Amino acid sequence: MLSFEKAQEIINREIESLVINREPVELYKPVKYILSIGGKRIRPALVLMACNLFSDTITHAIKPALAIEIFHNFTLLHDDIMDNSVLRRNRPTVHEKWNQNVAILSGDVMSILSYRFIGDCSAEILPDILDLFTTTALEVCEGQQYDMNYESRNDITGDDYIKMITLKTSVLIAASLKLGAMIGGASHTDSDFMYEFGKNLGIAFQIRDDLLDVYGNTEKFGKKIGTDIIANKKTYLILKALEEADDESGKILRKLISTKNIDPEEKITTITGILNRLGIREIAELESKEYYNKALRAFDLVTVNSKQKKSLKDFVKQLMEREK
Amino acid sequence: MLSFEKAQEIINREIESLVINREPVELYKPVKYILSIGGKRIRPALVLMACNLFSDTITHAIKPALAIEIFHNFTLLHDDIMDNSVLRRNRPTVHEKWNQNVAILSGDVMSILSYRFIGDCSAEILPDILDLFTTTALEVCEGQQYDMNYESRNDITGDDYIKMITLKTSVLIAASLKLGAMIGGASHTDSDFMYEFGKNLGIAFQIRDDLLDVYGNTEKFGKKIGTDIIANKKTYLILKALEEADDESGKILRKLISTKNIDPEEKITTITGILNRLGIREIAELESKEYYNKALRAFDLVTVNSKQKKSLKDFVKQLMEREK
Repeated sequence: MLSFEKAQEIINREIESLVINREPVELYKPVKYILSIGGKRIRPALVLMACNLFSDTITHAIKPALAIEIFHNFTLLHDDIMDNSVLRRNRPTVHEKWNQNVAILSGDVMSILSYRFIGDCSAEILPDILDLFTTTALEVCEGQQYDMNYESRNDITGDDYIKMITLKTSVLIAASLKLGAMIGGASHTDSDFMYEFGKNLGIAFQIRDDLLDVYGNTEKFGKKIGTDIIANKKTYLILKALEEADDESGKILRKLISTKNIDPEEKITTITGILNRLGIREIAELESKEYYNKALRAFDLVTVNSKQKKSLKDFVKQLMEREK
Repeated sequence: MLSFEKAQEIINREIESLVINREPVELYKPVKYILSIGGKRIRPALVLMACNLFSDTITHAIKPALAIEIFHNFTLLHDDIMDNSVLRRNRPTVHEKWNQNVAILSGDVMSILSYRFIGDCSAEILPDILDLFTTTALEVCEGQQYDMNYESRNDITGDDYIKMITLKTSVLIAASLKLGAMIGGASHTDSDFMYEFGKNLGIAFQIRDDLLDVYGNTEKFGKKIGTDIIANKKTYLILKALEEADDESGKILRKLISTKNIDPEEKITTITGILNRLGIREIAELESKEYYNKALRAFDLVTVNSKQKKSLKDFVKQLMEREK
């Protein structure tokens, strides 16, 4: 079976050799740029691995996998404008390197290009694939809108957060797995289980990301911690803490996450202290684990033998156990 | 046969009753807003009329027609951000009424929504329809990029301009007619003639628009003239004048179209004077007429009897002869 590393290699090779034979260069250079500056290619690799679960040949899954990766990068490009981010993967964002208009229009063209690659599916499954892709694309935009709405609201709960990240990030992972399965010839039931697998995985991964930002192993990896805290992000941990806190800690926490006029180190220490006292790490770990187990239960129901499932299972385990 | 007015009425009714049953409202309110503030619905009406040329029932063409209108409005929404426009159809633009992030994201969602409506085509023609729609959508973005490139360049010719407007506006009119034809069951050859018809029409209309901005009948309609001149737009007339001008007039013209520090009335009078001396009105009228005739020749080749072609022919004639 196709390992993640092998799938990733195929995707990277395809992206490198991707010739978008169109003009003007001013429009397509930023597209090439954002696609070339990396990322782990998790979503397109999942398309290929999911396809390989049901079919020996994965050739037909390559273009749809690229569609998913191009769409994902389109959302990053436009999110970066909306969030005013200057860096993406340690490189200047498109609107920083060029300008905002270029970033808007190149993003638009990427969103359309992703449909060009989706259109490459065989005619019999095209209506279903198109429907899945479009529904997912709408949901990702809706998730981004909820994320923006939440910034200015003070009444968001952990459940609201789960709903938001489900739309903003999980459904694209779910769609990647379902798309691959459909192209590989999976039954409707199996395709739906693959979707459930991906949706719950995505939530588990995001909560884990939130955890790692506070509790990541910095000694081992040298990665900065507390960047979400400094950016006043309402992560799962913060929202759960607000739910669990008494009046006193709640007040302090609310104040801290609405100011930038405080020493970053002090802010990280104080907030981490509150999280620790409230046992938020344990709550979040449990929650992440529960979604992970739910994901695995859905995957277990897919009617493919365990041996064939091994590489996908190993890969998601590795993602769950990462320490940075 | 379906008249333009009837087709327009159907589209307006469909748009009014369009329930996009999705959340959050913050994302879909601007979509509803831009779709509701009007516009002549020329493109979707053309889809219906083209379909009706080949088929008595136009029901299957309604959703694809809406796709074209939603896509068109998406491009207006994002163009307004890029051009910093505050008004659209005498109403505040989306980024003015809400904010820029809302305008970016609502535009994104409209572009994706247009694919939802395209996906409604019958499975047999879906691959071809999807291909046509995506190619057209890419071209429209490319046209907008050329338009932005041209703003800062001083070496643009009339031919460059034709290339730009072909992409930015004509191909969507062409695609509307071809799409309608395909849904109505037209042959490949007829569908291609419909495309040629629309492409040349679009160019003819744009040159006519440029003419009307300078030579429109203000007394009759009270519409302001010279808005393109005040905005320093490099229209077909200006570019042709730059080609035809001697050194002296060329220098004056070049200076005038690169400044905003001049009394608007004086600017309009001086530039119109130069255009008159160079006979630009006649050149542009001839050019527009030539594209119009080319369009009609393509339409003549469509294997449908003349009687059935009448309402479409009447409508395009009316568009060509409008005086505002």
